[in-house]
This record gives sequence, structure tokens and C-alpha cells, in this order.
Amino acid sequence: MTERTLILLRHGQSTWNESNQFTGWVDVPLTPKGEAEAKRGGELLREHGVLPDVLYTSLLTRAIKTANIALDAAERDWIPVHRSWRLNERHYGDLQGKDKAETLEQYGEEQFMLWRRSFDTPPPPIADDNQYSQADDPRYADIDGEVPKTECLKDVIERFLPYWESTITKDLDAGRTVLVTAHGNSLRALVKHLDGISDDDIAALNIPTGIPLVYRLGDDNMPLGPGEYLDPEAAAAGAAAVASQGKH
Amino acid sequence: MTERTLILLRHGQSTWNESNQFTGWVDVPLTPKGEAEAKRGGELLREHGVLPDVLYTSLLTRAIKTANIALDAAERDWIPVHRSWRLNERHYGDLQGKDKAETLEQYGEEQFMLWRRSFDTPPPPIADDNQYSQADDPRYADIDGEVPKTECLKDVIERFLPYWESTITKDLDAGRTVLVTAHGNSLRALVKHLDGISDDDIAALNIPTGIPLVYRLGDDNMPLGPGEYLDPEAAAAGAAAVASQGKH
Repeated sequence: MTERTLILLRHGQSTWNESNQFTGWVDVPLTPKGEAEAKRGGELLREHGVLPDVLYTSLLTRAIKTANIALDAAERDWIPVHRSWRLNERHYGDLQGKDKAETLEQYGEEQFMLWRRSFDTPPPPIADDNQYSQADDPRYADIDGEVPKTECLKDVIERFLPYWESTITKDLDAGRTVLVTAHGNSLRALVKHLDGISDDDIAALNIPTGIPLVYRLGDDNMPLGPGEYLDPEAAAAGAAAVASQGKH
Repeated sequence: MTERTLILLRHGQSTWNESNQFTGWVDVPLTPKGEAEAKRGGELLREHGVLPDVLYTSLLTRAIKTANIALDAAERDWIPVHRSWRLNERHYGDLQGKDKAETLEQYGEEQFMLWRRSFDTPPPPIADDNQYSQADDPRYADIDGEVPKTECLKDVIERFLPYWESTITKDLDAGRTVLVTAHGNSLRALVKHLDGISDDDIAALNIPTGIPLVYRLGDDNMPLGPGEYLDPEAAAAGAAAVASQGKH
């Protein structure tokens, strides 16, 4: 058996993380703090000698820039890159652009947590003429069928896992160390699959930003042991911060 | 006929451009000035509405970072990326790492200009144990045969044009606007082909850094007219600066 290495990296803080708005597919930039997180993520890869051979990103700038900055810090700018909308954040539907604290106050904690963490209940769909719709964004011109108008985590899994099976695992099969730089919910979709987490329990999983999460995989591309953060203390603090979002 | 658009962008100033050393395949970073040039290049693309659909770069960090920065300024971070050693700068052989002014003084103007501008006379080959050799660089592990030890412009053409014909032109054929972010000599190889410049006359062609050069191409992927710099005044000044390198 050849041990395979998979690295997951959630993008650093974006302007809407900072301003506490639902983001989804809206293409907001990283903050300077987010850029610093990305750099630290790349330095951790270099310090631990976990060097990616190939990169997968979403089509969203905050994940792409996180990857660019991290690879530069790891001195691996030159590895091949593949981008796909299938790695995008969950589409947050009509919530995109809305303030999280206001939404919590308006709809109450039960509805708020249902939209944030329910496995199979998507938020209301976004209208095509909403300024935060991606219906006419040229980067999604190649999607078969319609650009999503809303998604629950189940929808994310259904569009992400086929790409994992058909494409990303081919690089793992070839012995390449794979870096996936993506988003809270697309990475939760993958970790749910890898760690066999139930539809109910996935609600409690929070992935911190900017800290590489490394899995060693077997020939079946399933984990040989638990995933390990390259900075466990920062990861624990980061996950707690994500869990408390909207509650201020 | 569908008009096709090709954008050429030479990377901005590197640390060894600044220190006046022969660089070739040595992977030196951009200077802050080089990063600013890349940003300006991307702003020019956005201002002129010349928006790339796909990116080709070399495997050298200075071209990759130039592309990353320019695409970010043009808000096109998300386009597909292809990297190839065939777009690399000319390998400068045993001159890699040497000071240009000292080399000029040591060998005289005739030999110096022969190495810099001769079409078919490469510099002496670099030794595998030279600190500036790329013989063991993992990014070149996929090259069929040996990693180059020296190249003349003719060698660059012979490794670049097959990639142009087999790969880059396929994106042009599909109607995509192509951005090629590369180096002085790999871009001279392409411009020689596009503009039908003779082996003798190519010596006088200097491509300035950081200013997009835009060609409109016909169905045969040959130019419908001369290539146009998006900032012609800065391009003229930049070309003159390149031509005078080593002479101070």
C-alpha cells in the first residue's frame, strides 16, 4: 500500500466574515487578517514538510487567493491548479448579503440554526434580480443546467462528491499529495464522507480557517486515522470561534 | 471568421533584474516594484475590457506571481490555469547567477552580446553541481529527457512552439481569450513566430515588463495586425530600459 496525503485548507477571514454577513457564492475578498492566515497556513506546510503536488480550489476569489498566498509561503507556486464550482461554498440562497445577527434577531434561534446547520433544509431561493445572485456570472457559464439559487449541505455533498470520486482521487491514486483549498461547507461535505459522520452529527463540526488539516489515506482513499491539524491549539480556538458566529 | 484575442505579459522586475544577474531558470522572486508592475498590468486589462478566459504560465515563481497579481487586479482570479516548463525563460547555462556587468567586463562586448542575443549560440552548459542548476528540481521531474543545461533562443523556440501549436491554440480555437504570462525570451520566441521576424532581426526585439501586449488573431492563429501594448508610452520606455541592461 502507498500512503496518500490529503491537505484541506479553509480560506482565511473575508470581509463578510468580518462584517458578519452570509456570503455563500458572493465573491468577497479576504481581509488583511485573512491574507495573514493564508500565509501562516503555507508556512505550516513548509515547516512540517507537507508539500502539495497539486492544488484544487473553488471558483471563489477568497479560496483562490488563500491558495496563492499559502503556496507562495510554502515555495510551491508552480504546482498544477484545478478549479471547480463544485468546491464552492454552500449557496446561501436569499440569505446571501444579509447580516447574521439581524437575521438571528428577525427569525429567532431555531429558524436561524436550521438554515445554518440543517442537513437538508435550504434557505429560500435567491431571486435572479437580487444583486447577490450569480445567475449571470460568466465564471459559471459551463455549469450543466442552472446555477444554484440555494443549497443545503446535502446539495453541497451531491455536487462535491462526484468531483472527488472522478477527479481529485485520480491525483491521489497517482501518488500526488493533494491540497484542497475551499470553504466551511464544501470542506464539511468532504470531512463527513471521510470520517463517516452522520447527517445529524455533521451539524456540530466546525472547521477553523487557515490551518492545514492533513489526512493520511489508504488505497481506497479513505483515512488511515483521524485528520490532524498542523497547529492543533490554534485549530481548537478557531473552531470555537466559528461555532459562535452570529451570536454577538 | 471569429476574431481571437491573445494577451502576452512579461513578468515584472525580479530581485536579479534589480541586482543585474543572469537569471534563466533560477527561481528568484519579484521585487516590490515587480509586484506593482503586475498590478498595473492587471488594471490595464480591466480598464481596456480585455479580460482573459484562460491563463498559461511558466513554472517560474516570478511569472506565476505576476499572473496571480494581475488576475486579481483584473478580477479574474477564477479562470483556469495551465503551467508548463515550455514557457520558461531561456536557460542561461553557466551564466546563471553571474553579474551581467562583470561578465561584460570579463568577456568583452562581442562575446557578451553573442550570449545574450545570438539566435543559435548557447552559453556554456551549467554543471549539475552548480548551485544554480535545476537538474534535481522536483518541478521538472516530468520533462521527457534531460532538464536543459543551457539554451539559445533557437532552443527556446523548439520547445515552446510545439506547446503553442498543440495546446494554447486549442483554447484560441474555442474562442477563449488567452493570457500568456512568461519571460523575455519565451515571449520573444512567440512574437518571432507571430510577426514573422527573421533569425537576425529578433536580436533587436525587446519586450518591456508588466505591460499587456494584445494581438488579434485570425482563424489560423496568426495576427490580423500588429500587436498593441495597452500602455504604448510606458512600453517604449520599458523596451529601451531592457536593451541597455548590463551597460552600467
